Amino acid sequence: MPQLRVGYVQIYTGDGKGKTTAALGLALRASGHGLRTYIGQFMKGQQCGELDALRSHPFITLEQYGDACLIRREEVTPEHIAHAHQGLERARQTLLSGQYDIVVLDEVNVALWFGLLSIAEVLSLLDQRPPHIEVILTGRRAPQELLDRADLVTEMREVKHYHQQGVMARRGIEH
Amino acid sequence: MPQLRVGYVQIYTGDGKGKTTAALGLALRASGHGLRTYIGQFMKGQQCGELDALRSHPFITLEQYGDACLIRREEVTPEHIAHAHQGLERARQTLLSGQYDIVVLDEVNVALWFGLLSIAEVLSLLDQRPPHIEVILTGRRAPQELLDRADLVTEMREVKHYHQQGVMARRGIEH
Repeated sequence: MPQLRVGYVQIYTGDGKGKTTAALGLALRASGHGLRTYIGQFMKGQQCGELDALRSHPFITLEQYGDACLIRREEVTPEHIAHAHQGLERARQTLLSGQYDIVVLDEVNVALWFGLLSIAEVLSLLDQRPPHIEVILTGRRAPQELLDRADLVTEMREVKHYHQQGVMARRGIEH
Repeated sequence: MPQLRVGYVQIYTGDGKGKTTAALGLALRASGHGLRTYIGQFMKGQQCGELDALRSHPFITLEQYGDACLIRREEVTPEHIAHAHQGLERARQTLLSGQYDIVVLDEVNVALWFGLLSIAEVLSLLDQRPPHIEVILTGRRAPQELLDRADLVTEMREVKHYHQQGVMARRGIEH
């Protein structure tokens, strides 16, 4: 089974498009080299294009840990917090299972921003990372402690956006 | 056959990672909704992860127009220019064929920067775009004329990179 010699911690953050999308693309490219990717999505629970696209994909597994209806920090309930923790635990098991070369914690930065998880919990998971596994953290507002911990940080910056022209998110493109 | 009601022109640019990768991820997600994507890669001709991953994918077609060994502007030959033009012509046929919902011109910005194509040629292709087809242009150094023409521009900004630590591009992750 192909393996990375060294895995790194990557962060995709910023207000622009393409964070989750880049993680999906990375998983797809890696699959071409026989590398296996697990994607855990915090705060997502809806039917989305990536879920349908990856159903029964031989090298990519996608699981959702949350409730897509959670939009504002003020709406957080103990149930949201419990789901996020179950998700993090699931991600930890996956990281330690040896079954995957790449583990994506999608929207984990937002889960931290919303207070669903603590930074210490996520740092602890990173500390447990076997050194040959790549971990990718996505979402806006990555906290400084994670930026410090990451090997590679990319900010997706919105330069121009058609939302400014009143275009709604489109099925198949944005979700 | 599913179709976008309105397609837009998107640009992924900037010095950070994730431009081609985000286009791949977008194609993957769109495939979950039954949308078809054509990816034409300028200045690429090498075996890469995405090529292997997409071989015989039912909704995504990837073709390469170039020579991956072209790294510097000073090395451009008439042959490189001819290949880029053949690629652009192929992309134009694809755009007009009605067979795809999304057309990605990968690294076209770099092909412009290297002088392999003229901006007028790419703008002319965009003018011919059927309105329901999404076009995505990727690569560093997108010229102002294309930024002006695009509906959505995202800059991938490198905040922190392990290349600074002397790590080379890794098979399966970077290519």
